[in-house]
Amino acid sequence: MEAYLDNSATTPVCPEAIKAINQTLTECWGNPSSLHYGGIEAADMVGEARHAIARKLSCADDEIVFTSGGTEANNLAVFGAANAYRAKGTRIILSSVEHPSVNEPARQLEMQGYDVVRIRCDKFGRLDERQLMASITPSTALVSIMAVNNEVGTIQPVEKIRMAVKKANSRALIHCDAVQAFGKMPLKPYSMGVDLMTISSHKIHGPKGVGALFIKKGTRIVSRTFGGGQEHGIRPGTEPVPAIAGFGAAAAALPDINYQLKKTAELRDYLLFRLRELDGVVINSPEDALPYVTNISVLGFPSEVLLNFLSEMNIYVSGGSACSKGHKSRVLASMNLDTQRINSALRISISRYTTKAEIDYLIEGIASAQKSIMRRL
Amino acid sequence: MEAYLDNSATTPVCPEAIKAINQTLTECWGNPSSLHYGGIEAADMVGEARHAIARKLSCADDEIVFTSGGTEANNLAVFGAANAYRAKGTRIILSSVEHPSVNEPARQLEMQGYDVVRIRCDKFGRLDERQLMASITPSTALVSIMAVNNEVGTIQPVEKIRMAVKKANSRALIHCDAVQAFGKMPLKPYSMGVDLMTISSHKIHGPKGVGALFIKKGTRIVSRTFGGGQEHGIRPGTEPVPAIAGFGAAAAALPDINYQLKKTAELRDYLLFRLRELDGVVINSPEDALPYVTNISVLGFPSEVLLNFLSEMNIYVSGGSACSKGHKSRVLASMNLDTQRINSALRISISRYTTKAEIDYLIEGIASAQKSIMRRL
Repeated sequence: MEAYLDNSATTPVCPEAIKAINQTLTECWGNPSSLHYGGIEAADMVGEARHAIARKLSCADDEIVFTSGGTEANNLAVFGAANAYRAKGTRIILSSVEHPSVNEPARQLEMQGYDVVRIRCDKFGRLDERQLMASITPSTALVSIMAVNNEVGTIQPVEKIRMAVKKANSRALIHCDAVQAFGKMPLKPYSMGVDLMTISSHKIHGPKGVGALFIKKGTRIVSRTFGGGQEHGIRPGTEPVPAIAGFGAAAAALPDINYQLKKTAELRDYLLFRLRELDGVVINSPEDALPYVTNISVLGFPSEVLLNFLSEMNIYVSGGSACSKGHKSRVLASMNLDTQRINSALRISISRYTTKAEIDYLIEGIASAQKSIMRRL
Repeated sequence: MEAYLDNSATTPVCPEAIKAINQTLTECWGNPSSLHYGGIEAADMVGEARHAIARKLSCADDEIVFTSGGTEANNLAVFGAANAYRAKGTRIILSSVEHPSVNEPARQLEMQGYDVVRIRCDKFGRLDERQLMASITPSTALVSIMAVNNEVGTIQPVEKIRMAVKKANSRALIHCDAVQAFGKMPLKPYSMGVDLMTISSHKIHGPKGVGALFIKKGTRIVSRTFGGGQEHGIRPGTEPVPAIAGFGAAAAALPDINYQLKKTAELRDYLLFRLRELDGVVINSPEDALPYVTNISVLGFPSEVLLNFLSEMNIYVSGGSACSKGHKSRVLASMNLDTQRINSALRISISRYTTKAEIDYLIEGIASAQKSIMRRL
C-alpha cells in the first residue's frame, strides 16, 4: 500500500502529459525559432499548449508567457512590476503568508529602498482585509496576494483588491500567485481584476520545469532575462517544448473544476471525519479552505519524526511546504499558532487521483505512529 | 529523404535521454525538496545527473548549478558577476560575436553605467587577442568570451585570458559561454582558467528546458532569482527533474570527445569537398573551425528563400542562428563580410547522427535551388 498525499508539493504526471512530452521528444524536437518545417512544427506545439492554458484562464493566448516555473514567474511579476512602476511609486503590498518566491523578491526590493508592507493574517491564515485596504496608497506599485495558501489552503479575497486600488486612486498592478489554485477552483484573472497571475505545471499533473505568467494586455513589466526574442522578448531562451507541451496537455486534461471541487470536498470531509477518531489531532486549516489542502497538528509528535515514520510506510505528506525543507513554517507562525502546534504540523494535500483507501491508510499510519513513537514535544 | 543539418539550433533527443525522462515521469516524479522517500528518490536522480555533467567538465558536483537553459545561465553569469564585483570595477569585456544572451545583458549593464568593451573580430570571427589583452584593467569585473561561435564555429582563445587577467593585476571573473562547445571538444574549466561556464542540454541531444552554469568553488556571484533554497539558493524553484535527468543521460551518453571530433572533421571535409562542386558557394567559417558548424554563402540567393526551398525538400539548415529568426547576422557583420555574403549565408551544423547521405542530399538541394530560384541578390 502507498498513499501519496503531498500533492501541494508536486503531483504525479498525468498520462496525457506524458504522451505529449514523448511526442516532442521523438517527433517534434525542433527549435521553435527555426524557420524550417522542423521548427514550425515545434512552434505549433508551443502554440497549442499556450492556447489550452489560456482557455483555462479565459484570456488571450498572447497574455500567457511561459517561464521555467512558478518561482521564476513570481520573481518576474514582483521585480518586473516594481521596476516598471519605480517612477510612480515604491510601495509594495503583500501578505505575511506569501510563498518565498514572492516574499524573497519583495525583501530584495526592501533592501533597495522599496516600502514593503506585509499584511497580517488571522489564525486561519486569512489576511486582514482592513489593513490591506488601508495600506493601498496612490504611490503603491504592486499588490501581490496569493489565491490559495500552499500550506493551509486558505483562500484569499483577491477579487476585492481591484476596487480597493481604485478607491485609493492608485495605479498599482495586482499580482496573484495562483500556483496552488490553478486547475482547482474557478480562476479568471479578468473577472478577478488581476493584472498578473502565476501558474505552474507540476501542481496540475504536468511536468516540472515550466510555469507561466499571465500578463494582461497593456500591462507593462520590465523583463529580467535578455537574449533572443522568445516569448515577446519578455522571457527569451529556447522554449522548453517538452515541458510546455506537457503543461498544455495537463491543462487540457483538467476535469470540470466545479465537479472536481465538489468531489474533493467530499474526500476532504471524509479525511476530517477519520481524523476525529485520533487523539490529539488539531486542524490548522480553516473550514472554508480549498479542500485540496488540509493542515493538521499531531500534538506531541515533531513533524519530521512523524513524516519519516509515515514515509517508511510509503505514506507521503509534508511538514510545512516542500521548499521549506523542515524549517519552521513562516505561514503557521504568521497565524500565531503556538510552538507545539507549529512543530507538529503536517500538510495533507490531495489530488483528483487520491482515493479513500489512501486516506484510510494515512489514518492507520498516524495511529500507528502515535503508538510507536515517543512523544517529544 | 530528410536531412537535419541544424544541430547548432537544436539536436534530436538521444534514446538515453528519452528513457531517463520517462523514468522521471512515471516512477520518479516526486519533488526533490520533499523529505519523504518520493522526494529523496527524485533528489537522487538530480544528483546523478549533476554528477554525470560534472564528470564531463572534470569539476565537483556542487560546482554545477542547473538553470532553465543557456540563456538563463548566461544572464546569471553576466549580471551575477557584474553585481558581485560592482565595488571592485565596472568594466565588462566581451567579444563582438557573443550570443544575444551575453550581449544583451551586457547592453543592459551598459545602460546602467558599466563600461562595456566589445572586442572586434577578424574576417573569420576570431577575436583580436591584442585588443583583448590591452582592454583588461584592474577595474575589470568580467571577461565573457564564448568557446565556439554559434554561427560560424570559430574557436576563441579562452584559455589565454587567465594569464592576461593576471598580468593586468585584475581580479576579473572569466566567463565562457560554452553552449556550442560542450560535448564537442575537450572543455575543462579548471585547465582553461575559467570561473564560470555555461552549457546547455538541447545542444547535446538532451531535452530543451535545462542548462547549467559551472561556478568555480569560491566564486561569488549574485543570484537573480529568489525563493526556496534550491541549487544552493543561487537558482531556487522546484528542479525540472525530467529535463535534468535527460540532460544527465545525454551527457553520460556522449561518445569519446576526441574520437567523435575526428569523425566529425572527416564528415565536414566531405561536406567542403562536395560544396566545391557547386558554383558561387563561399565558405565563411575558418579552416580551423569546430567541424560541427560550417557557415557558407550561396551567392545570389537570399538565405530565407533558400532556407524555405530546402525546407520543402525536408532539408533543415538555418540562416544565421535560430534565435535571430531571419534578422541580419550580427556575427557575420562583425566579421566585415559584404552584404551579399551576409544576406546569402547558410549555417550547416552537424551532429554525431549526421550521415554522408544527408550531406549528399543537401548538395542536391542547393544545386536544385540554384537551378529553380531566381537570383535575387
